[in-house]
Amino acid sequence: MKAYAALSNEELITLKRELESEYTEFKNRNLTLDMSRGKPSTDQLDLSKGMLESLKSDDYISEDGTDCRNYGILDGIKEAKQMFSQMLDVSTKEIIIGGNSSLNLMYDIIARAMIFGVLDSEKPWGKYDKIKFLAPSPGYDRHFAICEHFGIEMITIELNDDGPDMDRIEELVRTDETIKGIWCVPKYSNPDGITYSDEVVHRFANLRPAAKDFRIFWDNAYCVHDLTDNPDKLLNLLDECKKNGNDNMPLMFASTAKISFAGSGIAMVAASEDNINFIKKQMSIQTIGSDKINQLRHVRFFGDFNGILEHMKKHRSIIAPKFDVVIGMLDNEIAPLGIASYRKPNGGYFISLNTMDGCAKRVASLCKDAGVTLTPAGVTFPYSSDTRDRNIRIAPTYPPVSELKVAMELLCLCIKLASVEKLLGQ
Amino acid sequence: MKAYAALSNEELITLKRELESEYTEFKNRNLTLDMSRGKPSTDQLDLSKGMLESLKSDDYISEDGTDCRNYGILDGIKEAKQMFSQMLDVSTKEIIIGGNSSLNLMYDIIARAMIFGVLDSEKPWGKYDKIKFLAPSPGYDRHFAICEHFGIEMITIELNDDGPDMDRIEELVRTDETIKGIWCVPKYSNPDGITYSDEVVHRFANLRPAAKDFRIFWDNAYCVHDLTDNPDKLLNLLDECKKNGNDNMPLMFASTAKISFAGSGIAMVAASEDNINFIKKQMSIQTIGSDKINQLRHVRFFGDFNGILEHMKKHRSIIAPKFDVVIGMLDNEIAPLGIASYRKPNGGYFISLNTMDGCAKRVASLCKDAGVTLTPAGVTFPYSSDTRDRNIRIAPTYPPVSELKVAMELLCLCIKLASVEKLLGQ
Repeated sequence: MKAYAALSNEELITLKRELESEYTEFKNRNLTLDMSRGKPSTDQLDLSKGMLESLKSDDYISEDGTDCRNYGILDGIKEAKQMFSQMLDVSTKEIIIGGNSSLNLMYDIIARAMIFGVLDSEKPWGKYDKIKFLAPSPGYDRHFAICEHFGIEMITIELNDDGPDMDRIEELVRTDETIKGIWCVPKYSNPDGITYSDEVVHRFANLRPAAKDFRIFWDNAYCVHDLTDNPDKLLNLLDECKKNGNDNMPLMFASTAKISFAGSGIAMVAASEDNINFIKKQMSIQTIGSDKINQLRHVRFFGDFNGILEHMKKHRSIIAPKFDVVIGMLDNEIAPLGIASYRKPNGGYFISLNTMDGCAKRVASLCKDAGVTLTPAGVTFPYSSDTRDRNIRIAPTYPPVSELKVAMELLCLCIKLASVEKLLGQ
Repeated sequence: MKAYAALSNEELITLKRELESEYTEFKNRNLTLDMSRGKPSTDQLDLSKGMLESLKSDDYISEDGTDCRNYGILDGIKEAKQMFSQMLDVSTKEIIIGGNSSLNLMYDIIARAMIFGVLDSEKPWGKYDKIKFLAPSPGYDRHFAICEHFGIEMITIELNDDGPDMDRIEELVRTDETIKGIWCVPKYSNPDGITYSDEVVHRFANLRPAAKDFRIFWDNAYCVHDLTDNPDKLLNLLDECKKNGNDNMPLMFASTAKISFAGSGIAMVAASEDNINFIKKQMSIQTIGSDKINQLRHVRFFGDFNGILEHMKKHRSIIAPKFDVVIGMLDNEIAPLGIASYRKPNGGYFISLNTMDGCAKRVASLCKDAGVTLTPAGVTFPYSSDTRDRNIRIAPTYPPVSELKVAMELLCLCIKLASVEKLLGQ
């Protein structure tokens, strides 16, 4: 195979005709495949089947004697706090167990920040003419949607191999008091699969923001979602922040959405004890507490944190082969042509691919017309604005391997076709 | 027994000595009983024990083929919408099934109203110098706490036997554009057990508020919580509002907190289709959806709405006797003395008692010192300000009958003692 850049115009025209004919064949197959979201597959959900029966009808009393069926306990039952504080490597005083959605926890914290401010705020965030968040990108579209919703201006920050561009972050937060937060998916980032290096975490912990109420939204969604024998290691941001007197800066989130059941898991937020107490005080007006029975169900099913780690190995055995399919096909079909770049992540839920500039939307649209839905091109950037129009998020977990192979064949074909069109100046 | 008002000073002094000696005996028993909150008893929770096992490990697919374990479906699974739309007597397009807490739904709607406004708002509620809510009182302390939290000024409205003082409500909302809402517990009100009459509901539906975005927060928490063979009937507010072109005025809430499990139930909001679509659009930024497995669990356990009604009969058989204990003791011990008034409710969770003016705090404090915790006196009014200091909320459901009897003996004694003190001008 020859890199496309080395092809003559004539060769490109011939190639285009061949690719178009292949594409027409695909279209005639009337596929309907979905690679748009990071959803666990049925096989993965089946791993937690037993959780539906993990509580017998006489099993509802928690360790400290609480009847989990009744009202009470705002921040979660003791044994759930124990299990998940280990997952996030914090103390049981530094965690709140919430409902089924970590997105909901993040949204609520920002909503309350807009109306009331966070712990160290001089005034509510909503009282500023404009506040800003930093958005390392490509990133998670739902984070960006929260900012858009609340009218929080986002500043795109480049994501390097070891994490976000810290020079730029340090410079921006140092002088601008209206920069109130940053979105991070620090381990196996969505979509790039990057894990922040120790140096990056150290620099985060050392930030000296002009805003005393600057917060790092540390969405550790993939904290135990390893796919290799040598998983990435992420430093504990809260620990590092404490060493620098920045105890209240990080708000760390996780959930079991991609451990147990995506729709019926448990979400949690971890932070300094002062932050946690502040959040609990605010939360006490909103709710009497989250579903304790579901917390107990998780505790019974997993036993302890080690049980979660064992469980994650089963997930790995299902989804690692899917990542291998994607990477394998990209390695064979795309890499030699020099028309796209991508990383092989050691965990998480996505593979992020960069086409030649100006081709991502075209690729997504070609795929869609042939029956394969990708995440809409661009959404991995604030305001869906991928200025180079090149990022495509591949979510390989949901489809079965057989479907994934077909979808990837089409994707590779569409990347080629869009690249040829681009090279021909069309 | 003689009414206290008819006693001479000397008789009162003798009586006081007797009551004090009885009270000392109580104190020596070192009781620790709790009648502070409307919590279901263990017996009641046991009625839903089967729900912990109502889903087998292969039972997770909803009627329309949705795998309830996975992401998706913002507003609840079809069969849950069907069941609970019947409970609230609305169409399945007029309901959202939420998480485990209706308080959370109310809080979130008000939080979003502060930041963005509701459907018909000209501007966010938070952009006014001050907005106000009407608060029929005595009422539910957690409603009032939400208003205090958001800095929404509350105007206390008197609650009559057939509902709130509608003359005053009509007059207030007609002219004041900053009155944005009203809290109602329209059936078996907390704490009085009053059900709004048809005329009151008609007048609500006919309101012509100056604020186009005025909302009735209709917390139908006790919609199926009857305690007699002739339960109260409440008109459907949404239906009545539609007849008057006020389709978007009501927001109706309910939950299974006092049907299935208090901490692990399902909450819901019902409203006009336009309202529901507006709320769903806002919610889509906050969460991917509530716990669908718990919705399916409820559907499997109850079968259909009729199953809920049958289940409520079992609750009734447990708690009606407790209400009888309270009413019986008040009838025997208090009524003849002319020192307090109360109603016998046909449902709900509370009995509300009015002492002589200026005695409620004293009664609660006497009870507390002898080991019985009541709801803190005053909290049934906005800003905990019971200007006449007379309302006491009795929550009879949680303690077993034996404990309830002891607690009521003490309560009756404390009412007598506080009344005598009052009559003696102490």
